[in-house]
Amino acid sequence: MRKLEDSLQATYSPNGICFGCGPKNSEGLHIKSRPEGDSVVADWLPESCHTSFPGYVSGGIIAILLDCHGNITAGYSLMKQKGLDAPPGTVTSEISIKYLKPTPTGKVLHLKARATRMEGSKVTVESTLDVEGVQTVSMRGVYVAVREGHPAFNKWS
Amino acid sequence: MRKLEDSLQATYSPNGICFGCGPKNSEGLHIKSRPEGDSVVADWLPESCHTSFPGYVSGGIIAILLDCHGNITAGYSLMKQKGLDAPPGTVTSEISIKYLKPTPTGKVLHLKARATRMEGSKVTVESTLDVEGVQTVSMRGVYVAVREGHPAFNKWS
Repeated sequence: MRKLEDSLQATYSPNGICFGCGPKNSEGLHIKSRPEGDSVVADWLPESCHTSFPGYVSGGIIAILLDCHGNITAGYSLMKQKGLDAPPGTVTSEISIKYLKPTPTGKVLHLKARATRMEGSKVTVESTLDVEGVQTVSMRGVYVAVREGHPAFNKWS
Repeated sequence: MRKLEDSLQATYSPNGICFGCGPKNSEGLHIKSRPEGDSVVADWLPESCHTSFPGYVSGGIIAILLDCHGNITAGYSLMKQKGLDAPPGTVTSEISIKYLKPTPTGKVLHLKARATRMEGSKVTVESTLDVEGVQTVSMRGVYVAVREGHPAFNKWS
């Protein structure tokens, strides 16, 4: 297990180009996820262009954040469980997101995710988004580590 | 019912700033949804920054596309059902997305959505994304028209 740089993405995917979490995508969102206890957390400040309607964050932007954060949570959880040196390449099988209330702009969004079920290469992740301690969104995602030959096999490297 | 400009968003939300579908968001995705029979469709060409891993579109970007497209489908369906002049302001209550296979970049993504259930202010939308006739993603979303006083009440105007 490598020493953690400023995020799991920077540590295990320094050349990643993913729109949501790739350090090398100059137009992306640059989510930085980090382990905290048995969870993975991230803090992210939306810019004005990430709005849906005045004063509130786009639900689609929130979906990107939660999906990418869930994905690295799944990969990191598999890495720890299997004693690997790096997360295996994981893809999203499905996500279900509940928007409990509008998420205000101009404030730090706090994401917290945890692998709640692991069966072979399949990981279920449950996560929340809150702003100043008030939860506005929840997500449940299912992620799968892909086999060699799949285009996402080396996605983190 | 106004004469359709190049999209439902341009017609009913010409000043919209939503990251996914607002005509006035200079950094947004500018989804252009249009009615076709009892469905609402859209075609969208991803740029290189919208990638997840090389050659494939970010699942989060796909979530934005399907969510925004589902939202205007819900609003437009309510408008037609209730004989309104414009769609009521609708917000996403929940979305569930299944990623059936990776979605390749460099090709037009075709979205097709339909309101499959309408109960008062609540609309269920089911949609698909396909590339050159091959379906790669499906979505089911629940959208709700908000009451006066909610920050999204006049979102389309």
